[in-house]
Amino acid sequence: MIKGKDGTVIPKVVIERLPRYYRYFDWLDNQGEKISSKNLGDLMGSSASQVRLDLSYFGDFGQQGYGYNIKKLKSELAKILRINSRTNTIIIGVGNVGRALTRYKPFSSSGIYISALFDIKPSIIGEMVNNIMVHDIKNLAEYVTVNNIEIAIMAVPKEIANEIASSLVKCGIKGILNFAPLDLDLRNKIPVENIHIIDKILALSFMIKERPE
Amino acid sequence: MIKGKDGTVIPKVVIERLPRYYRYFDWLDNQGEKISSKNLGDLMGSSASQVRLDLSYFGDFGQQGYGYNIKKLKSELAKILRINSRTNTIIIGVGNVGRALTRYKPFSSSGIYISALFDIKPSIIGEMVNNIMVHDIKNLAEYVTVNNIEIAIMAVPKEIANEIASSLVKCGIKGILNFAPLDLDLRNKIPVENIHIIDKILALSFMIKERPE
Repeated sequence: MIKGKDGTVIPKVVIERLPRYYRYFDWLDNQGEKISSKNLGDLMGSSASQVRLDLSYFGDFGQQGYGYNIKKLKSELAKILRINSRTNTIIIGVGNVGRALTRYKPFSSSGIYISALFDIKPSIIGEMVNNIMVHDIKNLAEYVTVNNIEIAIMAVPKEIANEIASSLVKCGIKGILNFAPLDLDLRNKIPVENIHIIDKILALSFMIKERPE
Repeated sequence: MIKGKDGTVIPKVVIERLPRYYRYFDWLDNQGEKISSKNLGDLMGSSASQVRLDLSYFGDFGQQGYGYNIKKLKSELAKILRINSRTNTIIIGVGNVGRALTRYKPFSSSGIYISALFDIKPSIIGEMVNNIMVHDIKNLAEYVTVNNIEIAIMAVPKEIANEIASSLVKCGIKGILNFAPLDLDLRNKIPVENIHIIDKILALSFMIKERPE
């Protein structure tokens, strides 16, 4: 349970919308000095009251009849989301997805620093992928502690995903971004966000078929 | 607006949960004959009434006091999500993400067939990536029509994403899976699903920091 400024619990969906607000304020920057909750809502496809409620969990940002100061909000949201501080991250699983993520440019401008890769395959341990070393998963616990790693990105086959996830928790990882096509069974021990590519494309496939012409 | 069996509009969040139901029924297969909405809800972290309501949009699947027949539900959901029929798909943008997706194994078992790649860079047009040809984006319209392409996966820089998306709509693409870190401005012309990797990891970063120890 994560609580906001006034002590109320912040719903997870609101937290998940926060980076989207940041994207809009980043885009609005240099386009004007302020924006009303009505105009921001129109831009984002939500209502003015939704915008005001969402942002109110994180601080007292707006001013009645004035709106939000764009530069100030952008900077506050950057602080809240730790965009300007470094978040040490590792990638577990050096397959196609893991390798592509080592070259994913938007990480660096969001404070996400990929520190190391881990795999179980002896043949690739010691390999450098885009200047990042592949380590043996046996050395995970020590590496996480010594290098102050907070987030693990899991790009492993679903058959071993739960086992890997449990050992990540034991090693002191604080949060997981999971690409494996299943829901990890971690009983809320640490926060998990999922990127389920197949779920997204199947939902799209359904919508395409059912949509009236 | 997509309507269910009884004519009511199916909320988008329910459609987006449907592939998750399929994953659970696929996993439950061979583990028993039937499952109650209560047990399914416990498994998925939702309530029995949520499960019953969600599934009721798509058909009359359950039986009071009996539960859901696992094999039947799995097969019905596969039909609804078109898992056993072929969905012709193209990838726009042959960068790190685009290339990784040509090797993404779970596509084939979900009916997703990557038919071609498209890019604007002359130096890579004609290249074969994992046995899939890179075409010139100028030939998009003809290719989409001739090859009956339904879905485009966009893995392009955000600066050109809206322009590409508009031309995809003009070419007759029916749905877009967008990996670019912005919301496409398509005014609901066709369904879009987003994979916003940075949004997910920033939400995680916030939750890690704010979580009580």
